[in-house]
Amino acid sequence: MKMKKFINAPETITDEELAGLGLAYPDILTVDGHLVISKDLENADRVTIVTYGGSGHEPAQAGFVGKGMLDIQAVGDIFAAPNAKLVFEAMKRADKGHGVLLLTLNYAGDQLAGKQAIKLAQKAGLNFRQVVTGEEIQYDPNGEDNKRGLAGAVALYHIAAAAAREGKSLDEVAEIAQHYADNMASITVKSTDATHPQNGMPFGDLGETDMMEIGAGQHGEGGGVRVPMMSARDTVATVAGALSSKLGLAAGDKAFVMINGCGATTMMEMLVLFKDTVEFLRGKGVEVVASMVGEILTVQEAGGFQMNIAKWDDETLRLWNTSCHTPAYSKE
Amino acid sequence: MKMKKFINAPETITDEELAGLGLAYPDILTVDGHLVISKDLENADRVTIVTYGGSGHEPAQAGFVGKGMLDIQAVGDIFAAPNAKLVFEAMKRADKGHGVLLLTLNYAGDQLAGKQAIKLAQKAGLNFRQVVTGEEIQYDPNGEDNKRGLAGAVALYHIAAAAAREGKSLDEVAEIAQHYADNMASITVKSTDATHPQNGMPFGDLGETDMMEIGAGQHGEGGGVRVPMMSARDTVATVAGALSSKLGLAAGDKAFVMINGCGATTMMEMLVLFKDTVEFLRGKGVEVVASMVGEILTVQEAGGFQMNIAKWDDETLRLWNTSCHTPAYSKE
Repeated sequence: MKMKKFINAPETITDEELAGLGLAYPDILTVDGHLVISKDLENADRVTIVTYGGSGHEPAQAGFVGKGMLDIQAVGDIFAAPNAKLVFEAMKRADKGHGVLLLTLNYAGDQLAGKQAIKLAQKAGLNFRQVVTGEEIQYDPNGEDNKRGLAGAVALYHIAAAAAREGKSLDEVAEIAQHYADNMASITVKSTDATHPQNGMPFGDLGETDMMEIGAGQHGEGGGVRVPMMSARDTVATVAGALSSKLGLAAGDKAFVMINGCGATTMMEMLVLFKDTVEFLRGKGVEVVASMVGEILTVQEAGGFQMNIAKWDDETLRLWNTSCHTPAYSKE
Repeated sequence: MKMKKFINAPETITDEELAGLGLAYPDILTVDGHLVISKDLENADRVTIVTYGGSGHEPAQAGFVGKGMLDIQAVGDIFAAPNAKLVFEAMKRADKGHGVLLLTLNYAGDQLAGKQAIKLAQKAGLNFRQVVTGEEIQYDPNGEDNKRGLAGAVALYHIAAAAAREGKSLDEVAEIAQHYADNMASITVKSTDATHPQNGMPFGDLGETDMMEIGAGQHGEGGGVRVPMMSARDTVATVAGALSSKLGLAAGDKAFVMINGCGATTMMEMLVLFKDTVEFLRGKGVEVVASMVGEILTVQEAGGFQMNIAKWDDETLRLWNTSCHTPAYSKE
């Protein structure tokens, strides 16, 4: 069957959606080629936050460019890293004299571009620090521990930006970000496949089965365990159980929970999963003090969700409870 | 194949997701049974805004309860209106001495509950006005003009609430809302079917074809015209063309555009569709002065989108550009 997506031509999807983003949020951001730049950057007198990554994961990451989150995203084509020169350009343009924090997800294609960009930045004497998130835990005991970066990074955008807005130094902001990255964990549960919008091919064969895959990675690269579909509550017990064990969560701890819809999974389901997660953690004496529930980092119309749990202290919660305003996430 | 949704039991979906909503947004709203109540209501000294409708359309409508949008939603079960007594209860609780604006979508099941609630409210001497949105235009020239209420109502929540927050009287707020309702138009383009989360059955047979349906109504009730999938640009020319003709948009006019994803259609596609709509209207000399792009009123994981265009004047734009803060939509 023909792919049923509303596009014009495979080769112009990214250019066209970025043009749409710029037209939809002229008060928040500017689109300059494949750079999405926060309007808040112009008068920024602080450490600034830059990321990069492929398109096709909307709203991530460009949907989180704005006040109190990302200053610039360098955008690649569908599921592809941007080239290193563009990442370097983003870092240069973001630097307001206090240095740049480059926040990146551990993903093979992305890391290659990042390494090259870092060489360019070092050569140019740019003041920057890089923090790489790779919070996926290995659910399959026999599997390879790839430490892939999943959606948990998005909450960190706000934490790092909040620290930067308070006037903290680049080293301080980087330390906060690294501490955050070290104390979170994620798993993807995939139930149906995405279709690649440029070639119309499905990502995998899960859609034709009654199974779901726990630990499927960002795009459904695999490496997970296939089990029959379970109730929301049983799925949560499995996933939140593994994540809280990994983090060593114990009674009295405070946690952040993210339920990230992969695309076709509804907000209705995400809210049920979130409620079950809060109840699961409450059963262990762990208090959920903050959350994000919704489509944050999708993979087209894939079914399933990512659960991210982070161990929080009062300082992290204080930073989180500052304002931000971006196309996809706002706090008063 | 088994339905692949993350739920616990068909009969508790709505209760469970509302519990999740309350846990996820404790700063914005309170969930009391099937009433979702804005925290902003407590100290409100103004006209208040109430709506009601079935669940299964998340984020609508409860996701728009909060500051500067809805004060209360009375929530029904999946795709079903709440009972009239609950709607009346919502109206009573919302009344802060300045009267209540009941904003409802023209949809057969909803209107029945509404009529009964109104009888209860009249009997109790409640000060209220009702405005019904029914902006769907009949795309099929041979079809029945059902004037169904689609997602356009969601933008009106903010316009009406903004007017109420300025201290306008109930009659003034109702007049603004009616004027808004009379100057907007919507069409649904459906590409794939939703699955009913309680019985696992698909809504229709569109998913097995290469066709899309223009004018399919809210849930895909039908009444539209099936045509082969087209490019985003050609789809926009067809849909925005019909809407702007209906509204009599001419060079020099100002317009609001909403692209509402029905569920499986990606933000990537919505942004492309939005960009094409802005360009289409620009070609007619019409300026797009505001927009909403995203999943606003979904039907589970249906593929497709609703386009809503409204003719705006400077006063509407001024009201729109005031702040609001709800789970699914915020303005600074």
